[in-house]
Amino acid sequence: MKACGLIVEYNPFHNGHLYHARKAKEISNADCTIAVMSGNFLQRGEPAIIDKFSRAKIAVEQGIDLVVELPYYYAVQHSELFAKGAITLLSALKVHSVCFGSEHGDIAGFNQILGLLSNHQDTYITYFKQALTEGNSYPKAHEKAFYRIGGKDLPVDIAKPNNILGFQYVHSINEIDRSITPLTIQRIQNDYHDQVISEPIASATSIRNELLKEKLPDKILKTTIPNTTRRILLEYKKDHSYWHDWEKYFPLLRYRILTMTADEISGIHGVVEGLEHRLINAAKEAISFESFMKAIKTKRYTWTSLQRVCTHILTNTTKQEIIAKIHTEMEPIRILAMSSVGQQYLNQNKKQISASVYTSIKKPYPNHLLDERLAAAYYSILPIQSQQEQIAQDYMPPYRL
Amino acid sequence: MKACGLIVEYNPFHNGHLYHARKAKEISNADCTIAVMSGNFLQRGEPAIIDKFSRAKIAVEQGIDLVVELPYYYAVQHSELFAKGAITLLSALKVHSVCFGSEHGDIAGFNQILGLLSNHQDTYITYFKQALTEGNSYPKAHEKAFYRIGGKDLPVDIAKPNNILGFQYVHSINEIDRSITPLTIQRIQNDYHDQVISEPIASATSIRNELLKEKLPDKILKTTIPNTTRRILLEYKKDHSYWHDWEKYFPLLRYRILTMTADEISGIHGVVEGLEHRLINAAKEAISFESFMKAIKTKRYTWTSLQRVCTHILTNTTKQEIIAKIHTEMEPIRILAMSSVGQQYLNQNKKQISASVYTSIKKPYPNHLLDERLAAAYYSILPIQSQQEQIAQDYMPPYRL
Repeated sequence: MKACGLIVEYNPFHNGHLYHARKAKEISNADCTIAVMSGNFLQRGEPAIIDKFSRAKIAVEQGIDLVVELPYYYAVQHSELFAKGAITLLSALKVHSVCFGSEHGDIAGFNQILGLLSNHQDTYITYFKQALTEGNSYPKAHEKAFYRIGGKDLPVDIAKPNNILGFQYVHSINEIDRSITPLTIQRIQNDYHDQVISEPIASATSIRNELLKEKLPDKILKTTIPNTTRRILLEYKKDHSYWHDWEKYFPLLRYRILTMTADEISGIHGVVEGLEHRLINAAKEAISFESFMKAIKTKRYTWTSLQRVCTHILTNTTKQEIIAKIHTEMEPIRILAMSSVGQQYLNQNKKQISASVYTSIKKPYPNHLLDERLAAAYYSILPIQSQQEQIAQDYMPPYRL
Repeated sequence: MKACGLIVEYNPFHNGHLYHARKAKEISNADCTIAVMSGNFLQRGEPAIIDKFSRAKIAVEQGIDLVVELPYYYAVQHSELFAKGAITLLSALKVHSVCFGSEHGDIAGFNQILGLLSNHQDTYITYFKQALTEGNSYPKAHEKAFYRIGGKDLPVDIAKPNNILGFQYVHSINEIDRSITPLTIQRIQNDYHDQVISEPIASATSIRNELLKEKLPDKILKTTIPNTTRRILLEYKKDHSYWHDWEKYFPLLRYRILTMTADEISGIHGVVEGLEHRLINAAKEAISFESFMKAIKTKRYTWTSLQRVCTHILTNTTKQEIIAKIHTEMEPIRILAMSSVGQQYLNQNKKQISASVYTSIKKPYPNHLLDERLAAAYYSILPIQSQQEQIAQDYMPPYRL
């Protein structure tokens, strides 16, 4: 059996994701799809709108064969580490290809950039460091270094967010496992109607923005997401009173920041260069997460890197802990949901798969203390009984279709 | 001018407190009364029902001349350190006497116990340690050691809570400043009607219990507390939506415990002998503060010592920090409210008073980082704008009558 890997967050699963999954299977000629999905906290430093088990269940009901979790210490990181973590998992799971969506839409361009980078590695690093010294953010410094080695006519517009992420996937595949074939499909615009699916495609961000409005947006719920997503989203809110978004966590985040010492905050992953003092001062004055973020934002830090810092504060994740995890041998892979095809893939490739795979979890396991902290933080905004029910899910077998 | 010192919490100020203040002034023959009052967190490890500034204001309006704050690191401690801190402050403020309420009601008995203790110091300590080893709580071990050196007929029943606290005051006076005359008055029972005040006296605990019921208890508010207390309590709730009690903090406490590592919890003041694991396990299961407390309670720890641990977790106060504070030279004394007589006392005794006295506070001052954390924790249950208004009070001049 041949598997195609997808790297996803499904926050929430929408028509664009459905298109991506179908198209990936088609062009990879794979027998099944394996999605590496971020858990309850996402790459942009946000809590997922609903929990990882619900999101994985939707994915499997929509045709994904296997959903595995990208651990927190790779998921809530800048794009390089995020890509490295995801490709490491997919390599261990022996996928033949990885298919990602990009604005560029043609894999040849990504391979050209990869060639360019290997020919100018040292120059690239020099330019990158120089750009950081000049006060640029991490992604901006990458962008500038690329333009310096590639000139104006880079084969791919790496200022586009999904192009740069795609490049990181191709780069990681090159570093980690060259037996994987990278593939890309063009991302479909907001108002594009595709033949494959008859419904409109909107971005996950715009769908979330609509969902979080006071009045439930019927139109969005009826046209941009599959029925399964709609049903599970509504059930979640009915059962647990809320969907998850940063504003709901702000009182907890604020309490946490204002009752930590500056020294403790400076030990949190991502807090650099005296950022702890900006965080404390902003937390005192801010009346919402939005106003807090605006108060800490500077040219040096992207909005998403600051959101990641907030996530690490909320979950109390220290620099030390992240370093230890990143340098640990590969830990067992956690299955969040699977179809019978996914199950069959695991059975057939048991010997080839180079990591143990959890289908059911018992304490203690390597990550259980971190996982419990993450779950406590993520569910903390729900009524206490919902928190307890949801946390218990960590020890139940994954959803099987 | 002669001052009589009172050691109080005023949570909230009720008719019994009024009786105590008047009687103290009368028997001490003092010109004014100085109350050392716990701040926002109390000796029993509880948040005060309303903030320290409001409680101090009520006290001054009810005839107390000067209210100074007992710092957190003395206030939220077992009775020995609590008494030591309070007497240290009153000694620095040059009071001539200290008057406390006790079940016993006669100072001679306390002096006899003091004599007994100095004659059997070593034996007492041996018995005390032995009782601890046998798994008794701290106060129970004290009680047992007293009975061992004093026999059955101790002059004071030191099993009574206000007798043991009173003994600690007398003991501290003996250690710190023998120029202070200890005085005691008998505490008045729940249903006792006194000639001095015509209204009934109920304990602060029973008044708080009534206040925290869903439906506002008109009867309590009309009969057991002065009008000023009633007015300020109601204003506080109107302005800030809530009175403070542990149940409201439970979601925050639970979040905090479940997102700290066991190692971090074991660094918190009062966490000993692996209590961190009990705390984590109980926090996972509990659905209320009450059920949480019941789950962690053992013979070894009193309810109040466990509540103090919860307070230190909520405020993130470490063993290290408490040790540093307790061993620091006396810090400036903070005035919370004063009458013109209190002001006059301070002016007249400026040269004698052996500590600096804050009447208005500017950052930075020795305790400002701790104070800011305490305020952030205490107000964390209020709407964010109330939190900010209340925290700002720390830098306003004290209330003057």
